Order: sequence, then structure tokens, then C-alpha cells
Amino acid sequence: MSRVVKLAVIPGDGIGPEVIAEAEKVLDAAAAGSGIRFEKSRFSLGAGRFLDTGDTLTADDLEAIKAHDAILLGAVGGVPGDPRLKNANIERGMLLKLRFELDHYVNLRPSKLYPGVPGPLAAPGDIDFVVVREGTEGPYVGNGGSIRTGTPHEVANETSVNTAFGVERVVRYAFDLAERRRKKLTLVHKTNVLVHAGGIWKRLVDEVALEHPDVTVDYVHVDAATIYLVTNPSRFDVIVTDNLFGDILTDLAGAVTGGIGLAASGNINPDGAFPSMFEPVHGSAPDIAGQQKADPTAAILSVSLLLDHLGLQDEARRVTTAVEEDLAARGSDAGATRTTTQIGDAIVARLQA
Amino acid sequence: MSRVVKLAVIPGDGIGPEVIAEAEKVLDAAAAGSGIRFEKSRFSLGAGRFLDTGDTLTADDLEAIKAHDAILLGAVGGVPGDPRLKNANIERGMLLKLRFELDHYVNLRPSKLYPGVPGPLAAPGDIDFVVVREGTEGPYVGNGGSIRTGTPHEVANETSVNTAFGVERVVRYAFDLAERRRKKLTLVHKTNVLVHAGGIWKRLVDEVALEHPDVTVDYVHVDAATIYLVTNPSRFDVIVTDNLFGDILTDLAGAVTGGIGLAASGNINPDGAFPSMFEPVHGSAPDIAGQQKADPTAAILSVSLLLDHLGLQDEARRVTTAVEEDLAARGSDAGATRTTTQIGDAIVARLQA
Ligand SMILES: CC(C)[C@H](C(=O)O)[C@@H](O)C(=O)O
Ligand SMILES: CC(C)[C@H](C(=O)O)[C@@H](O)C(=O)O
Repeated sequence: MSRVVKLAVIPGDGIGPEVIAEAEKVLDAAAAGSGIRFEKSRFSLGAGRFLDTGDTLTADDLEAIKAHDAILLGAVGGVPGDPRLKNANIERGMLLKLRFELDHYVNLRPSKLYPGVPGPLAAPGDIDFVVVREGTEGPYVGNGGSIRTGTPHEVANETSVNTAFGVERVVRYAFDLAERRRKKLTLVHKTNVLVHAGGIWKRLVDEVALEHPDVTVDYVHVDAATIYLVTNPSRFDVIVTDNLFGDILTDLAGAVTGGIGLAASGNINPDGAFPSMFEPVHGSAPDIAGQQKADPTAAILSVSLLLDHLGLQDEARRVTTAVEEDLAARGSDAGATRTTTQIGDAIVARLQA
Repeated sequence: MSRVVKLAVIPGDGIGPEVIAEAEKVLDAAAAGSGIRFEKSRFSLGAGRFLDTGDTLTADDLEAIKAHDAILLGAVGGVPGDPRLKNANIERGMLLKLRFELDHYVNLRPSKLYPGVPGPLAAPGDIDFVVVREGTEGPYVGNGGSIRTGTPHEVANETSVNTAFGVERVVRYAFDLAERRRKKLTLVHKTNVLVHAGGIWKRLVDEVALEHPDVTVDYVHVDAATIYLVTNPSRFDVIVTDNLFGDILTDLAGAVTGGIGLAASGNINPDGAFPSMFEPVHGSAPDIAGQQKADPTAAILSVSLLLDHLGLQDEARRVTTAVEEDLAARGSDAGATRTTTQIGDAIVARLQA
């Protein structure tokens, strides 16, 4: 069997290119012998592109990217405070634009504390859950504005938009995932305050739950969820939540499982209408860019999510196992610091062993 | 000098009455000899009141409460899932109504890790910061609605409203507080996504900062702020943030400083137009109500904030010191569990020593 997968690679800014270089090596090593060939095209997008050309994401970029089967993204964002980027919102103009235009309604963010990985919690317990974050609605829609801007009478509004269509599909995805895991689903929201936005989430979780009698469902307010993440993270299996709460919870979850240097994510269009996009949760970290200091593990684990999405479950698992072994081995040589490339090479070597 | 302070006491539901009983004992002990006499009136409000009368907070309640100098609140909320409370939103109808009607635009939430207090972090460092949470705007305004409710075509919106008037006054309060502390102020928001709501906050912090050249100002996205709270909480001195982000951050902050059994808060109207309200951050915990299991420390530390607000700085400090001593002593008899009353009595005894 031979199959060609068209992969759009967006290395991005800062440490993006460094971690993506390692992720690509791992992808190639994992796919070797699988009959899959990756046909890659590289896209220069992010703060660097904006500074060079004034463009964030053009209609042509978008059309070209859409012609691919999947996307691998490093990180985007310039040096904080760079005056030339004052009016460029790379996040909204490029990253969120891709998520919205490609209808990435599932933002999949697994959190697992791998053996041997040091974290901030004194007694973390077993941490192994997945946040299914909605990716195309909520407070992220950009439905806001202000009047009398810059005056003492300014009023600035920002509207969270939640549709039954949008909430139901991501809730269904989360239930299906829970069926394949420990059969526990937690809705996180703030229904006691955001009664309308919260109400539609609660209703649809309750409705879809009827079709999944074997999945245990509970509800936790977002504020309480942050407490559980540091006092009892093992209580979670699948968390389903909106775009903003998912953003907050997954950074915290990344921190409690050893840092966002390890946190992978998939921006998924489960219908396959558009290519899904895989990226580390971390940012572009311009302060350490080009110094071979970045940990490529989050990018490499994103490759595992990519392989899984392409139906290559065995290959995905082999990548995760290689990472797991590498992480376990780090404990013993905690003193030694490896370069970005050395970590990538070590994981490739384990894959090929 | 003799002064009468009219205090409205709202014990509330669940563990509320138990912790408030101890808080009142401490208040009386701390004020003894100060020339201050507390004239207390008790208000029955919360889920219990709703179940008895069908009322949440009537216009008469509100008028009566307004006639006081300050409010001490326990906690409100019924048993989760109680069908009789299905259509009663006690949080919005009573707690948030008080905060909004009494213009509590500063929700003051100190976070301090006291010596000897166990917490979830392996290496917490020195934690001592204050969150100044806006209390009358943002996503909490209740400006939402839904159409085609309950159908597959439902759209549910929820609007965050932010005014220059509302943001500037709380930002000014936060800067004044930073001047009296370690002179560091951090704005937490999500300006890269919520560009309008975030924009007005950023602009006003930048403007007010010009009047405080000795205060170091920085900005952290809310997702990154949760990471810092578990990896480097010492970096914070004063955090200023909106109503929703403040809700989330302060529960997490409570957890990392030993649990919300210790977290106190003040809902403050700095102008003095309305009485300010002091309450523990924790909820009514109906599952342990009436069992003398609740820790009254958060309520007692709220009394310290109340005394401070009334200008009784020495008395406030004496309460904090007594609590601090009690907390330090707990370490040594960690095995022993004390009742709610025993903890209150121990703190009163230290105050009187
Ligand atoms: C960069 C930013 C727009 C983005 C988000 O808020 O989604 C990031 O924090 C993330 O979690 O991927
Ligand atoms: C009960 C709820 C409405 C409240 C809030 O969200 O403000 C609580 O979580 C708090 O932090 O005081």
C-alpha cells in the first residue's frame, strides 16, 4: 500500500523552525516503511512574514493551505513590544484565522504526566486526561467593538457566541473520545454566571449524554476546575469546554504535567472538509530562539497526534513510546542539558531501534 | 473615642452559619477596647430563604442592607441538583446582585502562603500577592440571551461590557495598593484574542501607569498567568484583572496557598457610597454543613479585611497575626483535627493573650 499525504509545514517564528525541524525528522522516521510518503510544502507565515511583506495570511495562502491533507505548525509571534508589530495581531490574523477558516472545531489537548517527568506538584498522582476545547466559537469569535474609543466614555464589548450546531458537534466528539477512554466526561463552564453561554453547553451535554449511558458525566465550574487541576488532577478523563476556558485550562494542565515544553495539540476538523493542524501549545519564545535551547518534545508529540489523525495508530503510538522512553531517561541525567537537535536525534534513534 | 458600626450579617447556607459564628467571635474579641461597638443585624438570605419564601433578594432587603456600614457574609448556595432550586440562581439573584447594586467595584483577594501551611506545590517559594478583581463589569454583567432556545438552531450570546469609567477606577485602586506594597502591578487579560475588552484594560493601565513611575508594570495573558501561579507565584505583587479572569485566578491562587478554606475576600466600594461586603472565597459546602468540619479561617481573615476597611489597621493586623500563629501551630499537630468552634476559640484565645 502506498499513500501520499500532502503536508503543509508552517515553521513560524522564534523557536518554531527549530522544533519543527526535529518534528519533521521524527515524522519521517516514524513513517518509514509504512507506505506513506509525505509531500511537504513550506509556508512562511507569522511575525517574520508580516515584517517582510506586511501580510498576515492572504487569501492565496489560505487556498494553498487548504489543498493539503494536514498542517504541522511550529509557533508564531514576534518579540513582545516590537513597535513594528504594534498593529499586527498575528494571533488573530493568522493562527485564529486558520483555526476558524479551516473549521477546526475540536482543539484536542491531551495532558499526561509521563513517568520521570518533574512537575510543580508535590503529589501529582496519575495525570492522564484530554481537554476537548471548542475551537470556532465562544469569546474567540471576534464579535466585539468599542465606542468613544480612547476617551473617558469608552465602552468596549466582546460577545461570546455559542450555537447549538457548534456546541453539539464538539460535545459529540468528546463523548466518543470518552467511550474510547475511561468513560468519564466533565463539562467545564461557568453556568451560574454566564447563564446563556453556559446554558446551551449544559443542555447539549445533558442531551448527548442520554446516548452514552455508560459515560459518567459531571459538571465543574471553571474556577473550581483550576483547583482540581492542582489538587486532584486524576479526577479528570475527558474535559469538554469552550474556547476561552479551554485555553486557560490547557496552559495550567501543561504546567502541572511538566511544562508546556511537552504539551501537544491538534486543531481538528473531524469531518475532513479541511486539513487539520497540529502544533505545540507553547509560543514562539523569541528570547531563546536560534539557541538550540527549546525542547522539541511538544512538537514531536504533536506529530504523534497528526499520525493518529491520519489513521496511522501504530506509528503514532511508536512516537509516543519513543518520547516516553526519552522522558524517563532524562531523570537519570537531569544534570545534562541537550540541544534541541540532540533531543530530536535521541527520539529518532529510539524510533529506529 | 466611641464609634458605632452597623454591621449586616448574612450567615447564608451550608457551612456559612458555622464559619460566621466564629468570625463574629473574633470580630468582637478584636474590637474589644477599641471604642468601636458593632451593632449587628442578621439577614436570612440564600437558598434557605428562597426555599422558605420564594424570595432571593427583595428591594426591601436591599434597602435595609444599604443602611449598614459593612456586611459580613458566610456563603450562599443550596445542595447541588436540588430540584426545588432549579429555577433559582442564588448566585446571580443574590450574591452578584449585592455586588452590583452596592457597586463593589473592587473585589480584593489577597493570597499569602503562611508559614507552616501545606499546599500542593513542591517548591512554592514566598507567595504574597493581592488580586484586585473588577466586580461590576466584564462578562458578569448578565448581558446575554439566546434565540431558538432548546432547538438545534439555538444561538446563545453573552457579552462582556467594559467601560473606561469602570476599568479606570479599579486600575487606580490597584496602583494605589501597589504603591503601599512591593510596587509591582501585573495586568492579566487576553488582549491578543479579546482585542476590544482587552484593549480598554491595556490602555487604561498604560495611562494610569504614567502617574506611578515608581510602580513596575507588566502584562501577562490569563493562560500564562495560571502557569506562573504554579511555577513562580512569587513573581506577583498586585494583579489587576477583570471579573471573570479574577474569579478563575483567585480560586487557583487559593489552592496554591493552602486551599480556599483560608482565602478571604472583600467586595469593596472604595467611595463609601455603599457598604462593603466581606466573605470567604469558599462556597456553602452543603455536604459538610452542620458537622463542625468547616475551617472558619477564611471567614476570620475576611474579618481582618473588614477591620482594615473600617480604618482599624491595628485590630486587623492583630487578627491576621492570631491566624498566622494558629496556622503555624497546626503543622505540629497535623494529626489532630479540630472542630470549627475549636479553631475559632483558639484564634480568639491568641487575640486575648
Ligand atoms: C496565541 C493564542 C491566540 C492561542 C489561543 O488563545 O488559543 C494560544 O494561547 C493557544 O492556546 O493556542
Ligand atoms: C458563586 C459565584 C457567583 C462567585 C463568582 O463567580 O464571583 C464565586 O465563584 C466567587 O468567586 O465569589
